[in-house]
Amino acid sequence: MKTIGSFEIKDIDLAARIGRLYTPHGVLETPALLPVIDPLRQELSTKEIIETGFRAVITNAYLLWLRRREEAIEKGVHELLGVSSIVMTDSGAYQLLRYGRVHVSPREIIEFQQRIGSDIAVILDVPTGASKDRQQAEYGVKETLRRAVQALELIDVENRVWTLPVQGGPYIDLVKYSALESAKLPKYQLYALGSPTISLERYDYSTIVEMVFTVRSILPEQKPLHLFGAGHPMIIPFVVALGVDMFDSASYILYARDDRYMTPSRTYRLHDLDYFPCSCPVCVKREPKDLMELPKPERTRLLAQHNLYVLRQAINEVKTAIREGRLWELLEEKSRAHPSIHTAFRLFHKYVDYLEKRAPGVKGGEVHGIFLYSEESLWRPHIQRHYRKLLSSYRPRNTSKKLVLFPVSSEEKPVTTSKPYRLLKKMYPQLHIVGYAPFLAIIPEELAETYPLSQHEYTRNPNKIVIEETAKQIIAYIKHHNYDEVIVYTNSEEWSRELAEYVTLLARKEGIKIVGPISLPG
Amino acid sequence: MKTIGSFEIKDIDLAARIGRLYTPHGVLETPALLPVIDPLRQELSTKEIIETGFRAVITNAYLLWLRRREEAIEKGVHELLGVSSIVMTDSGAYQLLRYGRVHVSPREIIEFQQRIGSDIAVILDVPTGASKDRQQAEYGVKETLRRAVQALELIDVENRVWTLPVQGGPYIDLVKYSALESAKLPKYQLYALGSPTISLERYDYSTIVEMVFTVRSILPEQKPLHLFGAGHPMIIPFVVALGVDMFDSASYILYARDDRYMTPSRTYRLHDLDYFPCSCPVCVKREPKDLMELPKPERTRLLAQHNLYVLRQAINEVKTAIREGRLWELLEEKSRAHPSIHTAFRLFHKYVDYLEKRAPGVKGGEVHGIFLYSEESLWRPHIQRHYRKLLSSYRPRNTSKKLVLFPVSSEEKPVTTSKPYRLLKKMYPQLHIVGYAPFLAIIPEELAETYPLSQHEYTRNPNKIVIEETAKQIIAYIKHHNYDEVIVYTNSEEWSRELAEYVTLLARKEGIKIVGPISLPG
Repeated sequence: MKTIGSFEIKDIDLAARIGRLYTPHGVLETPALLPVIDPLRQELSTKEIIETGFRAVITNAYLLWLRRREEAIEKGVHELLGVSSIVMTDSGAYQLLRYGRVHVSPREIIEFQQRIGSDIAVILDVPTGASKDRQQAEYGVKETLRRAVQALELIDVENRVWTLPVQGGPYIDLVKYSALESAKLPKYQLYALGSPTISLERYDYSTIVEMVFTVRSILPEQKPLHLFGAGHPMIIPFVVALGVDMFDSASYILYARDDRYMTPSRTYRLHDLDYFPCSCPVCVKREPKDLMELPKPERTRLLAQHNLYVLRQAINEVKTAIREGRLWELLEEKSRAHPSIHTAFRLFHKYVDYLEKRAPGVKGGEVHGIFLYSEESLWRPHIQRHYRKLLSSYRPRNTSKKLVLFPVSSEEKPVTTSKPYRLLKKMYPQLHIVGYAPFLAIIPEELAETYPLSQHEYTRNPNKIVIEETAKQIIAYIKHHNYDEVIVYTNSEEWSRELAEYVTLLARKEGIKIVGPISLPG
Repeated sequence: MKTIGSFEIKDIDLAARIGRLYTPHGVLETPALLPVIDPLRQELSTKEIIETGFRAVITNAYLLWLRRREEAIEKGVHELLGVSSIVMTDSGAYQLLRYGRVHVSPREIIEFQQRIGSDIAVILDVPTGASKDRQQAEYGVKETLRRAVQALELIDVENRVWTLPVQGGPYIDLVKYSALESAKLPKYQLYALGSPTISLERYDYSTIVEMVFTVRSILPEQKPLHLFGAGHPMIIPFVVALGVDMFDSASYILYARDDRYMTPSRTYRLHDLDYFPCSCPVCVKREPKDLMELPKPERTRLLAQHNLYVLRQAINEVKTAIREGRLWELLEEKSRAHPSIHTAFRLFHKYVDYLEKRAPGVKGGEVHGIFLYSEESLWRPHIQRHYRKLLSSYRPRNTSKKLVLFPVSSEEKPVTTSKPYRLLKKMYPQLHIVGYAPFLAIIPEELAETYPLSQHEYTRNPNKIVIEETAKQIIAYIKHHNYDEVIVYTNSEEWSRELAEYVTLLARKEGIKIVGPISLPG
């Protein structure tokens, strides 16, 4: 067994990781979602929740302190919940946010979490909340940091994982300050991002994404990050992609009590459904009307179970995508869950450099071709890296200053085996012959088999933005390598004609001597 | 009980329908997928397949004729398969396609299907196949039609549903001819589209989509249409949207035998998976390595079951989307399953008029806001209808020839209650004051509460194509209604500035007198 609180990173895609966090009750593989257990009201036993496919749960130490203190101390939180899985406890910050005060001191709640044997504990932070004013937010940041420093001598990091929440709410400059100061307290093994609940309730995913990006680019990479209260499956892949490792969520049960049914991209009211668009064990045996007819407690239990299955699936989907190196594709797909998610995803444009820096090169094992759809596909690290390589390390072996450009069809990979390549080689034995394609822009022969130049599939009829951006990259390449003359060929595909025409237009504007577009023979 | 073969349409979205097809063994609700039963090799019993969530299966009458003829005649196909569900039988066309000949006559296979008590039977057609030459295709079309006419006196439409396959393979003109001639034989209660298997295997979804559009726009709307061999969940919503009602698929078992694991958007090799990105009853109890360790027959059985659960879910998702009137949104989401799917989806641009003609108005019950993401969202029927209305039936109550345009934020619905509207009403009591927004273009006060002008959510940072297309619609509106002068306001949102600037640019080009963009106060 490793040291408690150590975190190993097993795999990376974009800024997401598959990690292993060591706790007293075993290893938590991340990304992980921890269902919230209400210690005062359980429609579903903790055991049932664990059996739905979770390794860890989170419960509220403050509520236990208030209502079941003696029992919790005597039994410990694991026995109290009836499980031997990993148990994280929160400190009461949510109640502080909601009711303005809590009846426990920072020291008391630290000691209480120690006495009940929490695996992952949290100091008593002062959450900012999204709707508070700036002064309140500043107070929350400073007071949390003061308490974090004070707690340094109280926390027993050898016995459990201690969590430091970063504050600042929606004030990005405060979040930045809080993260910078928190990074100076390396005794904490886990960081958390507090209070986005209100933003989440308002569908303001852009703020969440910006907050996560801010803290994750400041906090040390090798430390895990927990995001409080991000409970809908649709936000999970986006924050994981930016580097969130853990979540907690009460939504599965809150929605269930309210007869709301989660799907990967929506939430439905049960009575609006005629079919279950799901094949979980709850849904395959029943129809919505069967569930509606059950007594409320049984209905809530089953709905909660269904919601947990959906969350479990969301986590497994994201892990599968990280393993495969196709997390960006998952984001493109999932960005159609809601316009607010799409808005947040389009902000990733700003994070291209951050993601490129963190994302690994070719993933181990089988190389999976990348899928290219629309302008958002241009932002993915492998494409950005390729563009940069063309304008930096790449030196053409052929030093001719005459360039021949020809279209590369999706099925002609690697490009050096393609018919037009061989034909043009004969026609222009001296010139530099280079392929072009939408998204990839330039495919030089020397790089023909490097990832992803032979490992991709693209939409055959990409939109105008893709055509224009690709053309700009082609022009940048021509200018960078100082060609005297360019000859452009096209094939019968529409993208080739569109791209060649736009390249020709831009080249003329730039004073580049260009011949074409010329149709390839045959 | 209705007449056998009658088809009732219960709900519509785009050109998709939820329907009820009456058969001797009960009603088949459509869209429906019929798992293919191999009568000679069953890793999974038909009963188990039905219990996974299907109402009907399809098996091969020709294979029964060849290998289990006496038994099939004696027991009937239902007893032979051990189910009392709906059983469709195919006639041997697949074997004809694959082996070039079959050892049964058209009359024999018709009579055999009658004797074994098939619920939905198919005449012995001559499939074209995607790779055959044109002459072969022409022969297939003509010979199938000849047989269809000959069979008219043999088929017992009072006892079972008889299916007429439309041929033509990838030759769209032949498909059209075949559909036109088939439409003249109304005795058949079900049409089918034959032979896209080869296109499907090549990921050539564009051809499938074009074939489906062609037959569906010719065949009578009130007749159901079956698509042979479309077995992957990712193609289902697209062909359903164009009007396909039924599918059959052997992929669940063929993939399983090959250790391939379906997801809604991909197929994985089992040994490549570390996690199951699924919560079906097979996957929640196991990890991929558990399944890998099972003996092959048990592994195949469980994988087949999982694949069936995924197909069941795909059908239920599409039905849920039809009920809700958000099938277009499902297509946008699912179009990111593969670039070939995306390519096929972008062809829907050509079908805008067809879809608009078929799609219903506001769906009954709760009105659900439409989600607007990118240029593909502009093609949806409700948006196209709104554009058309602005240039046809809409007559402004205010007849001023001076127009004031102001931006409508997503949360300011209906527009007549918005702050800028009230402000500008005071500033310009005589002028015509009209809202604008991305995607929707023009939102006049008289239409403020009509669908979807107050029932939508849009991406806050739409792409340039959306901005430009919206601006063009605004200019079309200005020109159509002959305004003398236009004043454009903006708010702090980026789309508003971008849109106002582009409108101003286009207006100047068109010689329209325009003032602005002016920032809204406050």
